[in-house]
Amino acid sequence: MTISMYQASVPVLVRMLGNLSAILTKAAAYAEAKKIEPRVLLDARLAPDMLSLTRQVQIASDSAKGCGARLAAVDVPKYEDNEASFDELQARIAKTVAFLNSLRPEQIDGSEDRDVTIPTRDQPLQFKGLVYLVNFVLPNFYFHVTTAYAILRHNGLEIGKLDFLGAR
Amino acid sequence: MTISMYQASVPVLVRMLGNLSAILTKAAAYAEAKKIEPRVLLDARLAPDMLSLTRQVQIASDSAKGCGARLAAVDVPKYEDNEASFDELQARIAKTVAFLNSLRPEQIDGSEDRDVTIPTRDQPLQFKGLVYLVNFVLPNFYFHVTTAYAILRHNGLEIGKLDFLGAR
Repeated sequence: MTISMYQASVPVLVRMLGNLSAILTKAAAYAEAKKIEPRVLLDARLAPDMLSLTRQVQIASDSAKGCGARLAAVDVPKYEDNEASFDELQARIAKTVAFLNSLRPEQIDGSEDRDVTIPTRDQPLQFKGLVYLVNFVLPNFYFHVTTAYAILRHNGLEIGKLDFLGAR
Repeated sequence: MTISMYQASVPVLVRMLGNLSAILTKAAAYAEAKKIEPRVLLDARLAPDMLSLTRQVQIASDSAKGCGARLAAVDVPKYEDNEASFDELQARIAKTVAFLNSLRPEQIDGSEDRDVTIPTRDQPLQFKGLVYLVNFVLPNFYFHVTTAYAILRHNGLEIGKLDFLGAR
């Protein structure tokens, strides 16, 4: 027996985006309770040359919508990257999830050998679908979700591993 | 077409452990160049109640060897968790990789419906193999590798996303 490209991608991304959304809900409540300007958390970063919380969430979203679209061979939805509040980040996550949920398993299953091209500033990256998913999308996606979590933990938000992993 | 449980697990974990090893090699060289006591980096954490770099590496290793063993239905190798230097962490990563590489695809393929039980302090967690891999192992594994990276970035190590993702 085997597993399908859909099973290994869309439901996993949707689930983790839900966990990220719940963490951001706690972060917004924490900012309000502690009278922290939300901007302080949204702009927080772990090193001067690392990306802010806002960018981590935007890129997690990019990674997820890019994966769904490229594996299904449809256009990648473009967002403006202009989110400036927790509510706007929540809206971005919600539209990313809605897009992923609009993809049917049969659009994605069988994409393991599909050619995937990622535009970059230098030359485009070329992958087969399986390598793209397991060696590019998932590491990148988890990198940004984990870093968002770590930025908030470093800034005093009381969350734990179960917030990251979500309910089973 | 479909993908196999082996393809989605062992080579992915081995590859990322190699990237983690290369990052730790850079961290050890950085400590030496800057005359930082290695202990300072090994004990570093992003919040007082988060785990240290050493523990992040140990748990990434645990997550990887647990995955390989449970999917292959063999005993999980036990390590003593007594690493106290970069060299000892490298040795732990090396033995984790050697264990994973000892597993044959045919031991793991077909494990998507295998029952997997994880002992915890409370009641054991029960999974089917596929859910265990995509919703437990991979998020946990990437969580700890990313947090190790983030601890080192926060402490001034000059590494970038390509160190995390590794060569293609």
